Amino acid sequence: MCELLGMSANVPTDIRFSFSGLMERGGSTGPHGDGWGIAFYEGKGCRTFHDPGPSSDSEIARTVRRYPIKSLVVVCHIRRATNGRVCLENTHPFTRELWGRTWAFAHNGQLKGIKRWPLKFYKPIGTTDSEHAFCWILDQLRARYARPPTPGQTVARVVRRLLARIDGLGSFNVLLSDSQYLYAHCSTNLAWLTRRAPFGKASLIDTELTVDFAKETTPHDVVTVIATRPLTHDESWTVMERASLTVFHHGLPVNA
Amino acid sequence: MCELLGMSANVPTDIRFSFSGLMERGGSTGPHGDGWGIAFYEGKGCRTFHDPGPSSDSEIARTVRRYPIKSLVVVCHIRRATNGRVCLENTHPFTRELWGRTWAFAHNGQLKGIKRWPLKFYKPIGTTDSEHAFCWILDQLRARYARPPTPGQTVARVVRRLLARIDGLGSFNVLLSDSQYLYAHCSTNLAWLTRRAPFGKASLIDTELTVDFAKETTPHDVVTVIATRPLTHDESWTVMERASLTVFHHGLPVNA
Repeated sequence: MCELLGMSANVPTDIRFSFSGLMERGGSTGPHGDGWGIAFYEGKGCRTFHDPGPSSDSEIARTVRRYPIKSLVVVCHIRRATNGRVCLENTHPFTRELWGRTWAFAHNGQLKGIKRWPLKFYKPIGTTDSEHAFCWILDQLRARYARPPTPGQTVARVVRRLLARIDGLGSFNVLLSDSQYLYAHCSTNLAWLTRRAPFGKASLIDTELTVDFAKETTPHDVVTVIATRPLTHDESWTVMERASLTVFHHGLPVNA
Repeated sequence: MCELLGMSANVPTDIRFSFSGLMERGGSTGPHGDGWGIAFYEGKGCRTFHDPGPSSDSEIARTVRRYPIKSLVVVCHIRRATNGRVCLENTHPFTRELWGRTWAFAHNGQLKGIKRWPLKFYKPIGTTDSEHAFCWILDQLRARYARPPTPGQTVARVVRRLLARIDGLGSFNVLLSDSQYLYAHCSTNLAWLTRRAPFGKASLIDTELTVDFAKETTPHDVVTVIATRPLTHDESWTVMERASLTVFHHGLPVNA
């Protein structure tokens, strides 16, 4: 199994605090030592960092931890390989272009038989069940809409149905984004937390680090963090229901 | 205009020496301060680093310079914006998946009217003429071959014709790779150099750095470096002819 971390915010926000907690689980406080990756959206741009080694001992992870990349949407993943060998092409998040936007996808869980689902446009580069599922989702969206439909809710309804279909194959905890919306699908484990004014302090579970968000934010900031398991022990996390999708936009859940 | 750097090798090789020279041109010894990016292929995997700021002052460039990522194919670019504003989505190299492989593309030059060329499958995320040209190339390859044709020479012949068509629109110095082959198309400026046994010393033009490759290599290593302008002053670079394509595989030019 793996662990997921996502962020949706209404102002460009750096995720270094949460990232520091998650990275410890990649080989230090957790067993997820088979690679890690992160996708930062900055406008329509998306930069990714991938490393097939343990995150707790990664030079690139140290750079990301040090360097404040500010983003509205982040998708991050640490891997414990269950399907597909440990190598760069099997390291999440996976990305593809659809409708002139970069879509990013990270998955925790296992899917039986997904590789028999036919693909048309998008082909996996690696050998994971996860990347196959991602290609299938984008294939379905592309087949249905040659151009991006508006408003976003229309896509969200289709995405919900697609994710629910895949969920029937096993466990499918997923973070998916098109650079604006962040889709969080809980199959077994996913929790989220919104930070907004009045901001307080938060302390990581996995390493000794406390941040006073009142000093780091403005009163208008709204930031939601989504993770497989809560990352802090002094904040109130919402544990998602099984087989549920929550869509985030500008830091808040939206109806979809 | 921009500058390009590419590498093709027969053993996983780190490009830190050449990269250090190029990065100086991104705001220090050269005027290309509008972003930089690099794609490293490791097997079928591809990791990219992008930064929309000057490379000579980039924290991520410093990490790449420090951290020996070993690769068979590298595509790197520093940008001086002429078409499309300075932002992450306009930062080369661009990547897309075709036939289950990641293709990476970087361009130096300007193309008049390319944005009127119709696109079907691939859509630009940013606003550069370069990304439009890249999408058009992959569109044409995909339309012609639903599956990857073998051997590689077949693709190379088609790529040659596609690049030549675009070259008619202006200046089109390009590095393009599918993770195995590295296509280097010279419109106005591109030079290359193959290092192989017996290895000697080399000194960068743009910063005081000398490497003795005899200490860094084995007698079987073959490494070709391609750059807009020669990066060293004590090696013999081959300046490419105008309107010519050279295809590299495992460090050597191949007939195509």
